[in-house]
Amino acid sequence: MNLILLFEEDFVNDGLVRLTGRRLQHVLEVHRAEVGQELCVGLCGGMIGRGRVARLDKDVLEMEVVLERQPPPKLPVTLLLALPRPPVFKRVLLAATSMGVARIVLMNSARVEKSFWKSRVLAGDNLQEPLVLGLEQARDTVLPEVLLRPRFRPLVEDELPELCAGTTCLVAHPVAAGPCPSGLSGPVTLAIGPEGGFIPYEVDKLSECGFVPISLGERILRVETAVPAVLSRLF
Amino acid sequence: MNLILLFEEDFVNDGLVRLTGRRLQHVLEVHRAEVGQELCVGLCGGMIGRGRVARLDKDVLEMEVVLERQPPPKLPVTLLLALPRPPVFKRVLLAATSMGVARIVLMNSARVEKSFWKSRVLAGDNLQEPLVLGLEQARDTVLPEVLLRPRFRPLVEDELPELCAGTTCLVAHPVAAGPCPSGLSGPVTLAIGPEGGFIPYEVDKLSECGFVPISLGERILRVETAVPAVLSRLF
Repeated sequence: MNLILLFEEDFVNDGLVRLTGRRLQHVLEVHRAEVGQELCVGLCGGMIGRGRVARLDKDVLEMEVVLERQPPPKLPVTLLLALPRPPVFKRVLLAATSMGVARIVLMNSARVEKSFWKSRVLAGDNLQEPLVLGLEQARDTVLPEVLLRPRFRPLVEDELPELCAGTTCLVAHPVAAGPCPSGLSGPVTLAIGPEGGFIPYEVDKLSECGFVPISLGERILRVETAVPAVLSRLF
Repeated sequence: MNLILLFEEDFVNDGLVRLTGRRLQHVLEVHRAEVGQELCVGLCGGMIGRGRVARLDKDVLEMEVVLERQPPPKLPVTLLLALPRPPVFKRVLLAATSMGVARIVLMNSARVEKSFWKSRVLAGDNLQEPLVLGLEQARDTVLPEVLLRPRFRPLVEDELPELCAGTTCLVAHPVAAGPCPSGLSGPVTLAIGPEGGFIPYEVDKLSECGFVPISLGERILRVETAVPAVLSRLF
């Protein structure tokens, strides 16, 4: 937690926040902060600044907060991600958020098990947890937009042409002929398939939308490795 | 498991292997292979080829093996990695191995908890497990060399000058002035610190060995994200 993410409801008045639960525990056990110490804070969706510890005990953390600068810019990336299996899901979303991905579309694919869509990691507020951890990791405050699209064809045929308009569209595909580009500056829509890859029909449908298959070489990487590897190379 | 890694002791004669345990279970449950089907195999430290399933039941998998091509080339990288905490350790070693890192030096740092060095993930054959998984993931057969160096100064003062001779030496450091280079072709020694980073003394000692601090930008990444992100950008 390189930044403590604050929400409007944490503020007891204009410049004072009161935190309990996970963030209190983290400051007690990992930061081991003391009264008077300044910690990096940021308002969800807003500015970054400093929080001066005014009170800290096992029940509550109070900080006097000054917000003074913008969060880092997002990567101009929409990540189309075949829904990973639940143990991997949180780590991939955390990594993509920490790297600054602006929008994540969780999509279906023939090799995504149907049961994954019923996982509790997608239910209610659970989906937000890895995003918050990713923001706290990277000292960012702006949640990526997350879309759940459990049906492949309606996404690709009806919605994707508009979603990816005006962007460089790439689909990571281990057997692709073309290498992964680098040094891009404009917006990118990047599709990354499930373990085992998109099936040929899916690659064809993405190609019809203008997606170009790219490869990182003959080594097949896990999704959680491929996401930071490709994102890092593109820009 | 995109490749089934074979060892000399798996061979019952020149062209026939007999597997039980983890690999048998994987072929039964994930590949769901049938007699006659061909699977990608490779001999640890040797060639890659095809294994034709000759027998498959709940007790044993037998394959007729033909080895016919070289594994993919390694990345010319020695990764100096501050020993990650045990839950992260396996994932980082798997990721680095799958990306083709040739040598991994697990090193100490002020922010590595002493208890990590006593973790059972380092004991005996446990260390090899994530390496084997990384090879199977990336269809490689050559284990990276792994060195354990639980003392910082003897490593940096006595051993490192020789280890990194003739290579581009880089240390990932979020507050570094210089950006991460790209398009390198020669050998690289890359140091990646613990969560919280190397302390200034450690960065100074690495600098004395010729290491240049580099940054991926103002976003601070988890070690498991930084490793693929930096490796992917370098070459």
